[in-house]
Amino acid sequence: MNIDMINAAAQRLQGHVRRTPLLSSPFLDEIAGRKVFVKPECLQHTGSFKFRGGWSAVSALAPEVRAKGVIAFSSGNHAQGVALAAREHGVPAVIIMPSDAPRMKIDNTRALGAEVVLYDRAGEDRDAIGARLSAERGLTLIKPFDEPQVIAGQGTTGLEIAEDAAALGIKNADVLVCCGGGGLTSGIALALEARAPTLRVRPAEPEGFDDVARSLASGQIERNARTSGSLCDAIITPQPGNITFPILQRLCGPGLVVSEDEALHAMSLAFARLKIVAEPGGAVALAAALFLADQIKGEAVIAIVSGGNVDGDIFAQALQRFPA
Amino acid sequence: MNIDMINAAAQRLQGHVRRTPLLSSPFLDEIAGRKVFVKPECLQHTGSFKFRGGWSAVSALAPEVRAKGVIAFSSGNHAQGVALAAREHGVPAVIIMPSDAPRMKIDNTRALGAEVVLYDRAGEDRDAIGARLSAERGLTLIKPFDEPQVIAGQGTTGLEIAEDAAALGIKNADVLVCCGGGGLTSGIALALEARAPTLRVRPAEPEGFDDVARSLASGQIERNARTSGSLCDAIITPQPGNITFPILQRLCGPGLVVSEDEALHAMSLAFARLKIVAEPGGAVALAAALFLADQIKGEAVIAIVSGGNVDGDIFAQALQRFPA
Repeated sequence: MNIDMINAAAQRLQGHVRRTPLLSSPFLDEIAGRKVFVKPECLQHTGSFKFRGGWSAVSALAPEVRAKGVIAFSSGNHAQGVALAAREHGVPAVIIMPSDAPRMKIDNTRALGAEVVLYDRAGEDRDAIGARLSAERGLTLIKPFDEPQVIAGQGTTGLEIAEDAAALGIKNADVLVCCGGGGLTSGIALALEARAPTLRVRPAEPEGFDDVARSLASGQIERNARTSGSLCDAIITPQPGNITFPILQRLCGPGLVVSEDEALHAMSLAFARLKIVAEPGGAVALAAALFLADQIKGEAVIAIVSGGNVDGDIFAQALQRFPA
Repeated sequence: MNIDMINAAAQRLQGHVRRTPLLSSPFLDEIAGRKVFVKPECLQHTGSFKFRGGWSAVSALAPEVRAKGVIAFSSGNHAQGVALAAREHGVPAVIIMPSDAPRMKIDNTRALGAEVVLYDRAGEDRDAIGARLSAERGLTLIKPFDEPQVIAGQGTTGLEIAEDAAALGIKNADVLVCCGGGGLTSGIALALEARAPTLRVRPAEPEGFDDVARSLASGQIERNARTSGSLCDAIITPQPGNITFPILQRLCGPGLVVSEDEALHAMSLAFARLKIVAEPGGAVALAAALFLADQIKGEAVIAIVSGGNVDGDIFAQALQRFPA
């Protein structure tokens, strides 16, 4: 994994991926006590940054391999990203999803033309299911984060941050990234190491699922006790990846951990102040920027809102519980 | 009013106004039966396109005139646009708002440093109040739409649409604009006349407040029977302006009229499919694009989402009544 792979991914993504802006609001600056910039990857195609990695991985395959189709496992955002990338390349996609994934994510993945296979998150091994289907049909497995071309695609988010931060004159800032397996976080960290080395990348996670924060603290890969039961479904993974963790360890940290309520509150503030839709897992970095200000350094903070695929009733609940 | 004024406004706005992208979703294309592109001015500073006109007008004043301060009357979006533009220019702002404006808009206008004066929309004449305060304090009145520099600022939205439509190869499309007094609609129409003359500008309004559609049909300025009592508060004005109407008449039409329920449904679809927050009045153009497809011509349709300043309870109501 290196910056050349991210640059190459950026070339392949050109014209297919939406370039997201940096948003801000004086009301958020006031809460955080410093300038807050938000990179709204919820505005990306399929509603999350995952389309970047999906497109990167599918477009990197040799045409004759790609033609047989791809397979992915995902709670929903990687699913949609790969499904749309496959459809736009004209190849089939099979997506293995946990049966407790948000309804919207399952429905959307099907509507984007993928064949959806549901599994039980607590009792079944999604990797085993993926490997079997992959072998049977000649499909190429596109892993959600521990895959170099996926990391390279997510890393293009970092190229854009570097460009916009330079234009705004931001040099001394933490860049907070919603972190599941670490694909987005490690990709951004590699991009910023090359293009904006004074910015510091820090993973943000929900309480109870802070495997990355604990792994960075202990110096070895730590697992989560649970792998379900959070509104932050988008970023719940058992542990950091074998490819992502060494990158996170070299370039990122320390981790930031927010409560589910803080994530819901950040969703409500993103609604009121930025007019964007964040899902709970996609709001943890913004929640850290707003509510963990004393753990953050710098004149400004940049927070990724990594996705916006949330069911309406959960969103309405966030607005009602935390009126802005 | 001409394109040179819009170009000059674009120069003054450079670096201060957010350049909004064109968003799209295959799910919206399917509903509309053609490609749908959305210009999300809800992502503009202060949550609506009004900041463009506010900045344009305040920045166009002679420094010694501007220093005395500005005054504006508005149900909320123009209020916030002028308040922030004044604050960033370091001059005082007095904003006259109807007492039934959404709480969030009144609170935000105050929080942006303006002095807010409330009036009764049914029983008091806001123009008279504005003229009196303006005379007493030496404030310059920034009218919400019937003011050349405001129209020029709103017209910069059209310059961006022309640029993005050219990049996407869109030549044959209706451009639907949420229309109150006609400032945004006439500004966009002038910009497109110069830069993208094959695109057609059409005002969109809520039922019962379709003064522009009726005025275009009859060839003379028609008034609305009511001036309050709609969720689409942002675009409820008594009648088209004396400056805007001749421009609308020359370049725009016919008007499109949607129900309040269609606007709420479009808000829910913008939430689910684009991850943006639209207010009811800001969603009428998208509602027309989605639900009045047979009244629209062209391979594609471009709809402005003009603002996103909506209270959480109204938004939650839209999601619950029209689950996507």
